[in-house]
Amino acid sequence: MIVILKHNAQQEQIERLKAFLTNLGLRIDESRGDHSTILGLVGDTTRVDADLISSLEAVEAVRRIQEPYKKANRKFHPEDTVVDCGGVPVGGGTFQIIAGPCSVESEEQIVAVARAVKAAGATLLRGGAFKPRTSPYAFQGLHGDGLRLLKLAKQETGLPIVTEIMDASHLDLFADVDVIQVGARNMQNFELLKVLGRTDKPILLKRGLANTIQEWLMSAEYIMAGGNERVILCERGIRTYETATRNTLDLSSVPVLREKTHLPILIDPSHATGVARLVKPMAMAATACGADGLMIEVHNNPKHALCDGAQSLTPDEFADVVRRVRIIREVAK
Amino acid sequence: MIVILKHNAQQEQIERLKAFLTNLGLRIDESRGDHSTILGLVGDTTRVDADLISSLEAVEAVRRIQEPYKKANRKFHPEDTVVDCGGVPVGGGTFQIIAGPCSVESEEQIVAVARAVKAAGATLLRGGAFKPRTSPYAFQGLHGDGLRLLKLAKQETGLPIVTEIMDASHLDLFADVDVIQVGARNMQNFELLKVLGRTDKPILLKRGLANTIQEWLMSAEYIMAGGNERVILCERGIRTYETATRNTLDLSSVPVLREKTHLPILIDPSHATGVARLVKPMAMAATACGADGLMIEVHNNPKHALCDGAQSLTPDEFADVVRRVRIIREVAK
Amino acid sequence: MIVILKHNAQQEQIERLKAFLTNLGLRIDESRGDHSTILGLVGDTTRVDADLISSLEAVEAVRRIQEPYKKANRKFHPEDTVVDCGGVPVGGGTFQIIAGPCSVESEEQIVAVARAVKAAGATLLRGGAFKPRTSPYAFQGLHGDGLRLLKLAKQETGLPIVTEIMDASHLDLFADVDVIQVGARNMQNFELLKVLGRTDKPILLKRGLANTIQEWLMSAEYIMAGGNERVILCERGIRTYETATRNTLDLSSVPVLREKTHLPILIDPSHATGVARLVKPMAMAATACGADGLMIEVHNNPKHALCDGAQSLTPDEFADVVRRVRIIREVAK
Amino acid sequence: MIVILKHNAQQEQIERLKAFLTNLGLRIDESRGDHSTILGLVGDTTRVDADLISSLEAVEAVRRIQEPYKKANRKFHPEDTVVDCGGVPVGGGTFQIIAGPCSVESEEQIVAVARAVKAAGATLLRGGAFKPRTSPYAFQGLHGDGLRLLKLAKQETGLPIVTEIMDASHLDLFADVDVIQVGARNMQNFELLKVLGRTDKPILLKRGLANTIQEWLMSAEYIMAGGNERVILCERGIRTYETATRNTLDLSSVPVLREKTHLPILIDPSHATGVARLVKPMAMAATACGADGLMIEVHNNPKHALCDGAQSLTPDEFADVVRRVRIIREVAK
Repeated sequence: MIVILKHNAQQEQIERLKAFLTNLGLRIDESRGDHSTILGLVGDTTRVDADLISSLEAVEAVRRIQEPYKKANRKFHPEDTVVDCGGVPVGGGTFQIIAGPCSVESEEQIVAVARAVKAAGATLLRGGAFKPRTSPYAFQGLHGDGLRLLKLAKQETGLPIVTEIMDASHLDLFADVDVIQVGARNMQNFELLKVLGRTDKPILLKRGLANTIQEWLMSAEYIMAGGNERVILCERGIRTYETATRNTLDLSSVPVLREKTHLPILIDPSHATGVARLVKPMAMAATACGADGLMIEVHNNPKHALCDGAQSLTPDEFADVVRRVRIIREVAK
Repeated sequence: MIVILKHNAQQEQIERLKAFLTNLGLRIDESRGDHSTILGLVGDTTRVDADLISSLEAVEAVRRIQEPYKKANRKFHPEDTVVDCGGVPVGGGTFQIIAGPCSVESEEQIVAVARAVKAAGATLLRGGAFKPRTSPYAFQGLHGDGLRLLKLAKQETGLPIVTEIMDASHLDLFADVDVIQVGARNMQNFELLKVLGRTDKPILLKRGLANTIQEWLMSAEYIMAGGNERVILCERGIRTYETATRNTLDLSSVPVLREKTHLPILIDPSHATGVARLVKPMAMAATACGADGLMIEVHNNPKHALCDGAQSLTPDEFADVVRRVRIIREVAK
Repeated sequence: MIVILKHNAQQEQIERLKAFLTNLGLRIDESRGDHSTILGLVGDTTRVDADLISSLEAVEAVRRIQEPYKKANRKFHPEDTVVDCGGVPVGGGTFQIIAGPCSVESEEQIVAVARAVKAAGATLLRGGAFKPRTSPYAFQGLHGDGLRLLKLAKQETGLPIVTEIMDASHLDLFADVDVIQVGARNMQNFELLKVLGRTDKPILLKRGLANTIQEWLMSAEYIMAGGNERVILCERGIRTYETATRNTLDLSSVPVLREKTHLPILIDPSHATGVARLVKPMAMAATACGADGLMIEVHNNPKHALCDGAQSLTPDEFADVVRRVRIIREVAK
Repeated sequence: MIVILKHNAQQEQIERLKAFLTNLGLRIDESRGDHSTILGLVGDTTRVDADLISSLEAVEAVRRIQEPYKKANRKFHPEDTVVDCGGVPVGGGTFQIIAGPCSVESEEQIVAVARAVKAAGATLLRGGAFKPRTSPYAFQGLHGDGLRLLKLAKQETGLPIVTEIMDASHLDLFADVDVIQVGARNMQNFELLKVLGRTDKPILLKRGLANTIQEWLMSAEYIMAGGNERVILCERGIRTYETATRNTLDLSSVPVLREKTHLPILIDPSHATGVARLVKPMAMAATACGADGLMIEVHNNPKHALCDGAQSLTPDEFADVVRRVRIIREVAK
């Protein structure tokens, strides 16, 4: 960590600051220039509050050199983490495809979709039982019933299930869920992250709507700091000024994360684009830049499409995507 | 709501869509152009799922004409809402100033700050007991003890207290709190909003990091739909590409919200800028564009400033801000 | 185009507006709802000024249904455009790779790089002679000398050359250039676009720093409206809040543009990411989502790397990228 | 400037880097930590290319400590700059209001508006003769005729005139213009900035659509480096994800700029919001946070408003704004 002192900082203020920093167990290397003096802090700065330091009268700015995350940091954990998801390994050179409907609607629907995506090559089943909806008047999911139906579909197909939690108080209902998803809007719901950090379930942590890669890794760190190191990251598009797509899929995050962390990285092209026609090209691109897998929405009833989301593929479209990404995966490895 | 049909939509698809829309109780006005046909939907479209409609094969795009919020909408509730906050009215032509420290740290600290801000003209006291921190290793607040100390400060000064809740399971601890704050990171924690909608406490709802004004009003609608119409909106800066300030304070949101909603609108210049020197000019600007009040961080110990946030004013600086905004308020009314 | 009237619009205002619109040769289809009345405008609305209409007292909002671009619009020109760039076809199912150094520095440098990239599979040569630099104190390029050296490299290798113009007054110097590039910062330099619209050179139009896809197509339309329809689009990353990469590469723009326009679409992963290590994965991703080609920075002197940009590949790294994208291209077609 | 070396940087690479930096006349202060080594560079780093340094294999990151602008920097020029604009001083504690129509349309129009805004308290006249329009099919201004009409309006009212230049080749036409405006889309048209840097006209430099405060000051530096130090900055809203206003007015930029530069700072609430109703509150807010003046669009024909922009005030509305901001100005000083 670097502390840049103000031009006109008083010696007494500087001394008080240095004493404070030394008390934190840090060594101070000082560099005096014509217009500014810089303190280089050597030691464990993870727990230093940069906002606090930068508030001091004598300080112009503070810059972190070390990343503020440890357990998620590849520097301290060079090997890829492989997360066992109900028998399916995610990360570490594997490539997994999670597929299923936006919402669980009925036994018939979820079992049919589960069979179709399994036949097409999916290795995990997704389906929403608790749905975060912008409007209080929109369908919020089948809740406990939805989780029960997912379990049925798992029994029918053997596919482990991935589904979203929206509140820590619902955790008991997730006992038979293989991977618990934290949605974009809850990426910084720190109380929920802490509770999940005390479970032993794999956690699929989606990137927040407008969160930086560093904030995302800090949210992973919340879960890991609680003892649960089974975290999977999933990029689903970020908010930008462009409105041609629902979000802007930030695929560069894949190689950036690969350097910074050992955790597996998935891409959700369905939510990122919000348009079914864009899912195939973006799934292929995600695979080409090195993602560890994909999460794709598939529906089963193209003819009566009134109940399916704008971003869902038919099983046939999905099968075509799987076939192509498997080839690209070989080139991208 | 306007539905734009595709150039090449088949007549059968169009008929199925029209039947679906008519079943929802909507009247359809059709306008056929050379390159596109437009369906104007007349009736209550609040519960129509625009994503669902736009997913249909025959549909090119859907545009909302009516706002999707009702209870928060000034169209259906032209009079300003005035929220009684422990005896202090917020909204409806009043101007209130909430002030206090970032975090509650000790009895001595919170009582001293409470007295200082009251003397300077604050009308409500703020202080964090549950702190949403990006890092799991940072100080997370005094929790229940913090709430107890806030209550002491209220007893000493008579100032009603405003403090943040981070999880619905903590609600019982907030029995003596006058205004419950929902932080930016929880603006779309819908489960929390639903629980707060079943209380009768005033809710100060901060705008999310990168949420639109419409999403913000939809989150207010969540609380109001549950029966609690005592919602206060608070802008605290949005995330943009500019890094010179922590966030970009979107002051235009004040006159925009004034037209769209009857709810009171406050501004938090401290969190928006993240820099104490910028709080005074932005507090004045917020007042000039018509905000119903301010929320400002004040600390009590400028000499030992090591424990105070970069964005906090001293009591004297705060008193100067209060004096000036009171004058500007008269011009802005 | 849809005009939404205000709830309380006066009949006289509405009549004046209707007369104005009818005078523009538009037919008006009216739809009256409980809370708003909508006018559907049928006819050529390309030249209607939406800002002007939305300024009227009676009008609440205006929404475009038709795109405001014509010549660039795939609706009116369904076949892919193929741009002949000094004998190399760009677009229409071809896949071209433009490579070369950030700046032309010397004959030795540009000829060596040109030979290396040709050997590795590049089909066009890039190199900057006029460099847009944020700082007036930074190296601004060799100007006319740089163009002369590029011509030499073309003579040596046969590769057509692509280089950036920064001002219309320099146009005479570009007589031997095969493709004239318009940089991101000049995407809305409308006077420059108009001048280029009167030439017969292929124009490589980079997307502006924070421009929407629609604004980008409107800038292409500027060139095409002048008579020059040889426009190639090149995405190079957009500005977002994320700072882990220099820009955020918006790969979703490729399939989005594919639907909206018949013009060729290239991707520049070098400028988008600003980091050499990220060029390879993003070049592969760009190919996988269907781009018509790539533009990649390559330098020739890895050992004395002090003079090469952070985002440049070595010839060997570049050859590896070419090999992989050629395979992916087969799957993505 | 701080150079952070990679964990695994080789000693030979480090030595080569140090030799390179020493050759630039910089002193190097080294700080070795457990996980990283930091080089503090002391001396004039304005001309050091940070991108170049950060591209080196041994380097993890580079952080600037000093601002890269000199002539625009308050550190080296503590006194406020006052720019004489045809006899009207801008900056240095003055408060000026530029007003006029979006476009010059006729002698009758511009003279009438000029008289009206002068009577209401405007001190400079604006009006567009060259109009940057997104669409090639939209009205592009009266060009030379527009400039001639502005001159007439100046003769009638004595108000100095401010108008936009779009290309360096038009400069001769601007001989009688008092202040030359550079629009947002040309903020990084470096060739235009260089040409303007060789004139002695006051330059009103608008902030680019999505440019940082630092980039804006670097564009001012371009003009100043050419010898013309008469630069006025004008904020006009930045592009964000929010669509309720055309742009997001970044008023925090006023106090931020006040610290960083000695140049005058104006605010254009008309273009920022794009909505006439929002101009008054935002003009008041701009004044309250310390701007040196305002630039406001006023039209003269509210009854036949079909030709006026959505963002223009009537003369009466403008007069009300002027009256209020004059009072607020006294409190904000």
